[in-house]
Amino acid sequence: MAPKSIRVCLSPALLPYYELDDTVAVVIDIFRATSSICYGLANGARAIIPVAEVEECLAYRDNGYLLAAERNGEVVAGFDFGNSPFAYTADKVDGKTIVLTTTNGTRAIQWCAGATAVVAGSFLNISALSDWLRTQNHHILLVCAGWKNQFSLEDTVFAGALVARLRAEGIELDDAAHAAESLYLEAQGDLETYLNKASHSKRMQRLHITADISFCLQQDIVSAIPVMNGPELVRLACL
Amino acid sequence: MAPKSIRVCLSPALLPYYELDDTVAVVIDIFRATSSICYGLANGARAIIPVAEVEECLAYRDNGYLLAAERNGEVVAGFDFGNSPFAYTADKVDGKTIVLTTTNGTRAIQWCAGATAVVAGSFLNISALSDWLRTQNHHILLVCAGWKNQFSLEDTVFAGALVARLRAEGIELDDAAHAAESLYLEAQGDLETYLNKASHSKRMQRLHITADISFCLQQDIVSAIPVMNGPELVRLACL
Repeated sequence: MAPKSIRVCLSPALLPYYELDDTVAVVIDIFRATSSICYGLANGARAIIPVAEVEECLAYRDNGYLLAAERNGEVVAGFDFGNSPFAYTADKVDGKTIVLTTTNGTRAIQWCAGATAVVAGSFLNISALSDWLRTQNHHILLVCAGWKNQFSLEDTVFAGALVARLRAEGIELDDAAHAAESLYLEAQGDLETYLNKASHSKRMQRLHITADISFCLQQDIVSAIPVMNGPELVRLACL
Repeated sequence: MAPKSIRVCLSPALLPYYELDDTVAVVIDIFRATSSICYGLANGARAIIPVAEVEECLAYRDNGYLLAAERNGEVVAGFDFGNSPFAYTADKVDGKTIVLTTTNGTRAIQWCAGATAVVAGSFLNISALSDWLRTQNHHILLVCAGWKNQFSLEDTVFAGALVARLRAEGIELDDAAHAAESLYLEAQGDLETYLNKASHSKRMQRLHITADISFCLQQDIVSAIPVMNGPELVRLACL
């Protein structure tokens, strides 16, 4: 039992060019949606419902849900919180269901519907995730959420970290998987410094949320693997 | 006079997400369309007309044009030739106008229509091209033709070679430009070995056209810069 191939989709806009049959899709939005999703579920959130639009998110109000909305790096006015991992601590999310919409990550998750399984990845759960992926006898597609359909460095470097952990004799890699791995191997000695040149790091620096960058680059602080179950992301063990 | 920014579009399918105003677009299809275009114009071809479809190409027959069509790496049956650079020698193309359709490159050229200027790049003309780009007071968008809208390693590595030559204080790079440069810096010591892992290299090995790979990785064997002028690619000096 091992993955059949590892491919990297560098932007959600390229998803139509990839087969999703017999495929585990791993959605990656390091700054910050999938990092916060991993952290929130690890901290006891019952489920996280990703929705594409702010209006969809609002439709859940008044039913005991926590509503989270981020656009352009900031919490949308009127919402409980956005996608900063510091909002997903146990005291806030334990036992709750969160409805979340973000600029890039939650749309990417929805666009992967059709895959055999859809999970969320981040540095926070990288070992648990790669241990699980190693046992999957399917194709693996690492889907970088990017920024407004453009390539983003941090998501690709994380995809490369997974490639480096999963690659083995006989597992085919596509060109983007080779490239992502090259970038990770260059970056791994000091991820935060390497990613300083990323446009999203600069955006977060301007918004004074650099603590979020350091937080999202921590490895293995949780073991939860978020997986889509119907419309909800839940912990893999909860299925 | 210097470029205002350098961005890299990793697939033609991502072009809708890039501004083309005030932008010089450099189309890159290393294996082999833009390499052969540079070589053919350097060898005296009057012009090369890129068309998207085989049927469009056929419409030019019986008028003295050379017809070139490639799909999936092979010459389409019934055509004078495909996109191997060895078909673009002076004895074949001098004084001729070539109508060319390829799997990826010619479509990418057409999709850049809206840019201030559209030129073709390859290792064969890299110094002439980068010397010219350095004088352009516009944004520069390096457009990788890829393979069927997916990322390709050789086009991205070449984009990175241009970034490495053009980058200077004050010129903004996007994330994909940083990534492309990283890949080029890793690959530059032995381009052909690095690109052996590229899926298109493997495809060409299966088709027994590895001589084309070595040919297309030669640097500075021509100084022609192909530029779109109406529906035709001509030598920049011929405008």
